Amino acid sequence: MIRLTRRYRFCASHRLHTGKLTDEQNRELFGKCNNPYGHGHNYILEVSVSGPLDEAGRVAPVPTLDRVVTESVLRDFDHKDLNSQVADFASEVPSTENIVHAIRGRLIRQWPEAFPGGWPRLDRVRVQETRRNLFELTT
Amino acid sequence: MIRLTRRYRFCASHRLHTGKLTDEQNRELFGKCNNPYGHGHNYILEVSVSGPLDEAGRVAPVPTLDRVVTESVLRDFDHKDLNSQVADFASEVPSTENIVHAIRGRLIRQWPEAFPGGWPRLDRVRVQETRRNLFELTT
Amino acid sequence: MIRLTRRYRFCASHRLHTGKLTDEQNRELFGKCNNPYGHGHNYILEVSVSGPLDEAGRVAPVPTLDRVVTESVLRDFDHKDLNSQVADFASEVPSTENIVHAIRGRLIRQWPEAFPGGWPRLDRVRVQETRRNLFELTT
Amino acid sequence: MIRLTRRYRFCASHRLHTGKLTDEQNRELFGKCNNPYGHGHNYILEVSVSGPLDEAGRVAPVPTLDRVVTESVLRDFDHKDLNSQVADFASEVPSTENIVHAIRGRLIRQWPEAFPGGWPRLDRVRVQETRRNLFELTT
Amino acid sequence: MIRLTRRYRFCASHRLHTGKLTDEQNRELFGKCNNPYGHGHNYILEVSVSGPLDEAGRVAPVPTLDRVVTESVLRDFDHKDLNSQVADFASEVPSTENIVHAIRGRLIRQWPEAFPGGWPRLDRVRVQETRRNLFELTT
Amino acid sequence: MIRLTRRYRFCASHRLHTGKLTDEQNRELFGKCNNPYGHGHNYILEVSVSGPLDEAGRVAPVPTLDRVVTESVLRDFDHKDLNSQVADFASEVPSTENIVHAIRGRLIRQWPEAFPGGWPRLDRVRVQETRRNLFELTT
Repeated sequence: MIRLTRRYRFCASHRLHTGKLTDEQNRELFGKCNNPYGHGHNYILEVSVSGPLDEAGRVAPVPTLDRVVTESVLRDFDHKDLNSQVADFASEVPSTENIVHAIRGRLIRQWPEAFPGGWPRLDRVRVQETRRNLFELTT
Repeated sequence: MIRLTRRYRFCASHRLHTGKLTDEQNRELFGKCNNPYGHGHNYILEVSVSGPLDEAGRVAPVPTLDRVVTESVLRDFDHKDLNSQVADFASEVPSTENIVHAIRGRLIRQWPEAFPGGWPRLDRVRVQETRRNLFELTT
Repeated sequence: MIRLTRRYRFCASHRLHTGKLTDEQNRELFGKCNNPYGHGHNYILEVSVSGPLDEAGRVAPVPTLDRVVTESVLRDFDHKDLNSQVADFASEVPSTENIVHAIRGRLIRQWPEAFPGGWPRLDRVRVQETRRNLFELTT
Repeated sequence: MIRLTRRYRFCASHRLHTGKLTDEQNRELFGKCNNPYGHGHNYILEVSVSGPLDEAGRVAPVPTLDRVVTESVLRDFDHKDLNSQVADFASEVPSTENIVHAIRGRLIRQWPEAFPGGWPRLDRVRVQETRRNLFELTT
Repeated sequence: MIRLTRRYRFCASHRLHTGKLTDEQNRELFGKCNNPYGHGHNYILEVSVSGPLDEAGRVAPVPTLDRVVTESVLRDFDHKDLNSQVADFASEVPSTENIVHAIRGRLIRQWPEAFPGGWPRLDRVRVQETRRNLFELTT
Repeated sequence: MIRLTRRYRFCASHRLHTGKLTDEQNRELFGKCNNPYGHGHNYILEVSVSGPLDEAGRVAPVPTLDRVVTESVLRDFDHKDLNSQVADFASEVPSTENIVHAIRGRLIRQWPEAFPGGWPRLDRVRVQETRRNLFELTT
């Protein structure tokens, strides 16, 4: 069982703000990330998959993995405003934690169609927001 | 004459769009960067200064340089939407080229107050927008 | 359960030497790292924590995490000589392995005060000494 | 138990091609990586080991680890053509997945001689082929 | 006048060997880089251009620059063996110095067709062969 | 004329302090860098040379360049305390600016013996002290 981690990038804007709190509470909680006009990041997305090797010595066909990630994530997230243009964040704060959750959900939903044989398994979704902050969800 | 390059970071959102062109022309010219809701980046700013060494063996007191860059650039640019919150881009496209120009102008204006002795000189302003694109203006 | 890894930096000097061995044995064991005048590194510290998300969509409030790391580690380690100025290495070799142990102990002791609700958990402490050497302790 | 990850580099050329498939199938499967004249990479190899600390505060003597990796891997892989000069790939595709397998096998075979006390344990072998692709095998 | 540096990547294999010297001299001169079976690298290519800004605030249309670099360089160099598949190295050693020369020549030849207005100017071609070696030609 | 930049690394400790000032002035001027016990860095040294290509297609024989840098700089600086073990800093503050000066002087002195033909020329010495600070001297 080998694990492959493949790296993608997307640029997006977002604003940290939740309807569950007052404006004042949002400001205090999120500080400059609560700026009503938003700000943005170069996000780095790493998708890790694992499984046995096929006869070509591969844990997964990379073009298939790229297609899944592009169709289910990058096409909707890249060069977008997450709060206003990505349905996952209509009522959820687009914190990087929630971005990781949303990406994993999107990948899992398209997985059976993309990898009908059951392999590779989706092991981990990891998103780096800045050089100092990295978030990950391991299955 | 030694040159010091100091690195700063700011996160911001922007939209590439110019009033000199029609919406259709903007879309064709800027592609996904013309998305009306904007997107964002982790910008890396490098400021290079040069001059003779003072008695402490320094080309410049780094705290002074940091103060100039923070007060004249980072405070206005970091965690902001460049189009709607930074005056420099009220009528100018916030392309990275124009961001470099704006930053240099802001630094030059505060320079005489910060470095009254005439040293160090501001040599170069460089902004990296993504790992693939880097823009610089050398004086 | 999302894991957040946050990155910090500190610069310090150290000398690899243990009182359990003779000077000759120390020289042979540690080579140039045994230089009596010391040498130094730009250490990179990564602290990983995990837990459920709060109502703000966060695994942990980053300002709290930063305060814990700063107060219990960075304030004592940054721009210091580890052998002579950090109590943890009064009788222990300041190898990066022992630095990782010391940092984890310091964080664990301050954890209950900083995170009284029990979340997030401290998952891993990782220290990079050079681009070639990285040490980690997973709880 | 501390884990040490040490980083090595090697430059090599390879061609993805398997005798189990026709030329046409190889071309379709591997695309430009099937180019009969080969191409190459700067591979990054990370070897992770873990164990208790010795009296010198080390999880492993780094010179011994370096010797094992150099003698069993780097000497045969660095500045070589993997398909024609490394026996492991005489009948196996030199995919990075198989490279990871081969490296782990080579290390495991030399481990008892290098570390007769049973420590450290070989935890993980990781190979980065490009900035976007990373493969690993955890024991 | 702003300068834009844009980064590209290509993977290739090569062998350092010149017909002007004997096999023995080649071995002595180039060492392991003279290995008859070749080896390879992940090359990083940086192309720098400069000029005045157009009405869209750009020093150059990036899609045009990408097309020139792809058509005149990457299509021929990426996933190729430089010695046997790239005409520029039929009689020249594919040292990184000569690779820089060849790339600059290829870009210059296609420049007038791609940028008929005379702007931007091609300022510099830079190729990184490994993390330790970087070669550049400034016009 | 091609320029080659080659990268080296050394780890050292230092203390910023000058005998030209009082202890109080030193503390105020250098802050935490004036800590009497010192601290340290992983310095990155980049040496740039340029010239015409020899018959082997090289701007310089890299082994010769490595020998010069090792003998005249790395052997004295790596894993050393700059203040107490490197003569250049007996009376000079080991600021990175002065480190750059000292390295350039050492290289220039050994240059004629190493490169008796006059080529390559030493173009630039650059030292990175941390990810945020980089100093260079161009000839």
